[in-house]
Amino acid sequence: MTDGTGRATVLTGIRELVTNDPAQGDLHADAGDRLLGLVRDAAVVVRDGLVEWVGPAAHAPAADGRHDLAGRAVVPGFVDSHTHLVFAGDRSVEFAARMTGQTYDGGGIAVSVAATRAASDDELRRLVAARVGEMRAQGTTTVEIKTGYGLTVDDELRALRLAREVTPHTTLLGAHVVPREFAHDRGAYVDLVTGPMLDAVVAGGGPALAENVDVFCEPASAHAFDGDEARTVLEAGRRAGLALRVHGNQLAPGPGVALACELGARSVDHCTFLTDADVDALVGARGTTVATLLPGVEFSTRSPYPDGRRLIDAGVDVALATDCNPGTCYSSSMPFVIALAVREMGMTPAEALHAATAVAARSLGLDRRVAPGMPAELAVLDAPSHLHLAYRAGVPIASALSLPG
Amino acid sequence: MTDGTGRATVLTGIRELVTNDPAQGDLHADAGDRLLGLVRDAAVVVRDGLVEWVGPAAHAPAADGRHDLAGRAVVPGFVDSHTHLVFAGDRSVEFAARMTGQTYDGGGIAVSVAATRAASDDELRRLVAARVGEMRAQGTTTVEIKTGYGLTVDDELRALRLAREVTPHTTLLGAHVVPREFAHDRGAYVDLVTGPMLDAVVAGGGPALAENVDVFCEPASAHAFDGDEARTVLEAGRRAGLALRVHGNQLAPGPGVALACELGARSVDHCTFLTDADVDALVGARGTTVATLLPGVEFSTRSPYPDGRRLIDAGVDVALATDCNPGTCYSSSMPFVIALAVREMGMTPAEALHAATAVAARSLGLDRRVAPGMPAELAVLDAPSHLHLAYRAGVPIASALSLPG
Ligand SMILES: [Zn+2]
Ligand SMILES: [Zn+2]
Repeated sequence: MTDGTGRATVLTGIRELVTNDPAQGDLHADAGDRLLGLVRDAAVVVRDGLVEWVGPAAHAPAADGRHDLAGRAVVPGFVDSHTHLVFAGDRSVEFAARMTGQTYDGGGIAVSVAATRAASDDELRRLVAARVGEMRAQGTTTVEIKTGYGLTVDDELRALRLAREVTPHTTLLGAHVVPREFAHDRGAYVDLVTGPMLDAVVAGGGPALAENVDVFCEPASAHAFDGDEARTVLEAGRRAGLALRVHGNQLAPGPGVALACELGARSVDHCTFLTDADVDALVGARGTTVATLLPGVEFSTRSPYPDGRRLIDAGVDVALATDCNPGTCYSSSMPFVIALAVREMGMTPAEALHAATAVAARSLGLDRRVAPGMPAELAVLDAPSHLHLAYRAGVPIASALSLPG
Repeated sequence: MTDGTGRATVLTGIRELVTNDPAQGDLHADAGDRLLGLVRDAAVVVRDGLVEWVGPAAHAPAADGRHDLAGRAVVPGFVDSHTHLVFAGDRSVEFAARMTGQTYDGGGIAVSVAATRAASDDELRRLVAARVGEMRAQGTTTVEIKTGYGLTVDDELRALRLAREVTPHTTLLGAHVVPREFAHDRGAYVDLVTGPMLDAVVAGGGPALAENVDVFCEPASAHAFDGDEARTVLEAGRRAGLALRVHGNQLAPGPGVALACELGARSVDHCTFLTDADVDALVGARGTTVATLLPGVEFSTRSPYPDGRRLIDAGVDVALATDCNPGTCYSSSMPFVIALAVREMGMTPAEALHAATAVAARSLGLDRRVAPGMPAELAVLDAPSHLHLAYRAGVPIASALSLPG
C-alpha cells in the first residue's frame, strides 16, 4: 500500500465502513453510527498507501485494480496506544498464582527486567517482531511501545532502538519501577532517569529516540513512583522536548491523573480508581489529555474495572488500549479489549471502537479518519458490522488489511 | 491423519504435552499437572489418525516422518459439547440493545427461527461449514450441534441432517422454545416434539439422526418449558433410545438440574442458579451427569457467572463449552471460555482445560486422552504452556493440528 506505484485500487463489497469522519455517514443515523461516520455499502479508493476517495459504492470512481471485501465490514486499523512489547520471558506462573488469590503490586516486574537484560538484541528483535505481527493479524495497524524492562541507561536505550525499528511511537518508561539495585536510594534512580537516561534519549541533535516519556505513578506500590517523583520525571521529559504519558490511578486513588492533566500529558492510562476531582480534571483537560482505559489488565488481575460510562458521560476523551505486557495483561487483542469495554465498562460498541481508533490515535498525535489524504490504515472484519467485535467476543474476526502492491 | 497410508509421524519439539491420562506425567507434580497428565519435552507418534506412542522426547521411537512443534504446547483438541450452529441471520442489534440494559428471556429465539426456516439447505450448509472451520482454527476438534431454530418436524429434521454432515454428535432440541404458532396450545407442541418429531428422528431402523435429545427447561421464561413439560420430552427421548441433555437453571433456580440428574442425563448445561439441593443432586450423579458451564453466555448477556469453584469443590464433574448461538453467545472460542472460567468462575487453568476436553468429551460418551490407540485429535498452542490459554486471553493461540497425509 506504500509502494508508490501510483496504481489506484478500489475496495468494493464493504457492507459497512467506519470512517470516524463526521463529514461521512448519515446525519439522521443513530448516535453510534454518527460517532463512527458509518457508511453502509461503501467503497474506498486507495493509491500509494493513501485514501483517495470514500463514499457509497454506487458512486465509486474507476480505478486500476479492485479488491472485493465480499460483504465484510471495514474499520480504521486499531491504534494500540499503550504496550510494553520489548521484553523476554513470560510470567504465566505468576498469572496462575494470582488467579488463585495472590494480589498484584508491581513486584513481578523485576522478573521481566532480569530476563530482558539477559536477552540478546536478536532475541528481543525476534520477540518484538512476532508480537507486532500477532497484533497486525488481529487488526492493529499502529502501536506505541514503551520501554521499562531495562532500567539502566544502556538497556533502556537498547529497548528504544529496537522499538524504533517497528514504530515511530516510542516511549521512555525508565521510571517503570525502581530497580532492585536502587531500592535503598530511590532519589539516585530518579536522578539517573532525569539526567543521563533522558540525555542519551535526546542526544545527537536529530530526532529523539523516544516520542514520549512515561512514569508509573502509584504511591500504593513500593516499586512505583509517588507524585513528587513522577512530577520530577515528567517535567524533565517535557524540558527534553518529549510528550508526556502517565500510568496513573491503577491500584488506588492517587496523584497520577491530576498531575497528567496539570502538565498537559497526552494520555493518562489505567484510571481505575478516580475521585470526583480526578474526573473534573480530566473534563478540564479535554482536547489535551486522553484517559486511556486498559480493561485487559483488570481482566488479567481480577481487579474492578474502570468506569468508562462515567467518564464518557462526564465528557472525558476515552481511549482503549491493551497494555500488552508479561505481567498484568499478556493480551495483544484490541477486539478483546473492545468486548471488555462493552461488557464491563458500560461503553456502547460504537464508543468502544471509536476509543480504540480515533481517540487512541489522538493520544499519539495522530488522526485516524478514513478520509481523502489520510493513510489507508484499515482493518477488515470477517463480519458484516462493527457490532460483531463485541458480539463475537474471543473470536479472531479482525485483521489488518494488506493490499497487493 | 486418517488417510490410512500406514505412515507413522513423530511429533517432536513439544515443550509441554497435556494427555489427560493419569498414567502419563509425573506423580510428584502439582495437582494441576497431575490432572492434565502433563509431560514436558514430549513426543507423540501418530499413525493413520491414531496415537501410537506417547512419552518423553528422549525416548521417542523412529517414524517415517517428523513434524516439529518448535517448543509449542500440545493439548487435546477442545470438545465443544454444546453449540447451536445451524442457524441463519444474526442478532447483533439485539446484543447491542442488551448491552444497554435490555434483559434476555429467550424471546429473541423466534427471530433466528424465522431466518433459519427461510434459508436454503445450501445457505445453511455453507454457514455451518464456516462455523466449524472457524472452531477448528481455534483448536476445537469435536463439536456437538443442536437443532432448535426449525421447530417443525421438517425444519428440525433438516437441521439434524445438515449437522450430521459435519459431526456424529447431534442433538434434537425441538423443545428449544414454544414456537409462536403454538403459543396458545403449548401441550400440542410438546405432543408434536414427543410424537411425530421424535418418530421421524429415529425412523428407518438405522442409526437415529440424533444422538441426544435436549430441552430448554426454564419456568422463568414464557418461551421455554417447565419441569413437567421437560420431563415429558426427556422421557420420550429416552424411550426412543436417545441420550439426554438439558438446558437447566440458566435464568433462575428451577427443576432442570434435579430432573437431569434423576433421569441420568449425560449433561445439564448452564447451571447458573443452583440451590444446595441441586449441587447435592449433581454430586450424586457424578460419573453419569456432567454439569456443563457456558460462561460465554454470562459474558454476552451480562449475567452473573455460575460458581464453577463451588461445583468442583463439591466433587461435581464440570465441563465447559461455548453454547455458540446467535442470541446469547455468538462466540465459537473455547480458549475464550477457558479464560472466562479462570477469571470469573474460580477454576484453575488446569481445571478449565480438563473441563474443556476430558469432561466435555465424557458428556458425549467419548474419551479424550492422548494415549496409544486413541484418535489423534490434538490442538497446538502458539505458546510454551497451557497456562497461556488464560494468560493470553483473547489472543488466537490455539489451532487444531493437521498433519500432512
Ligand atoms: Zn503499562
Ligand atoms: Zn444452548
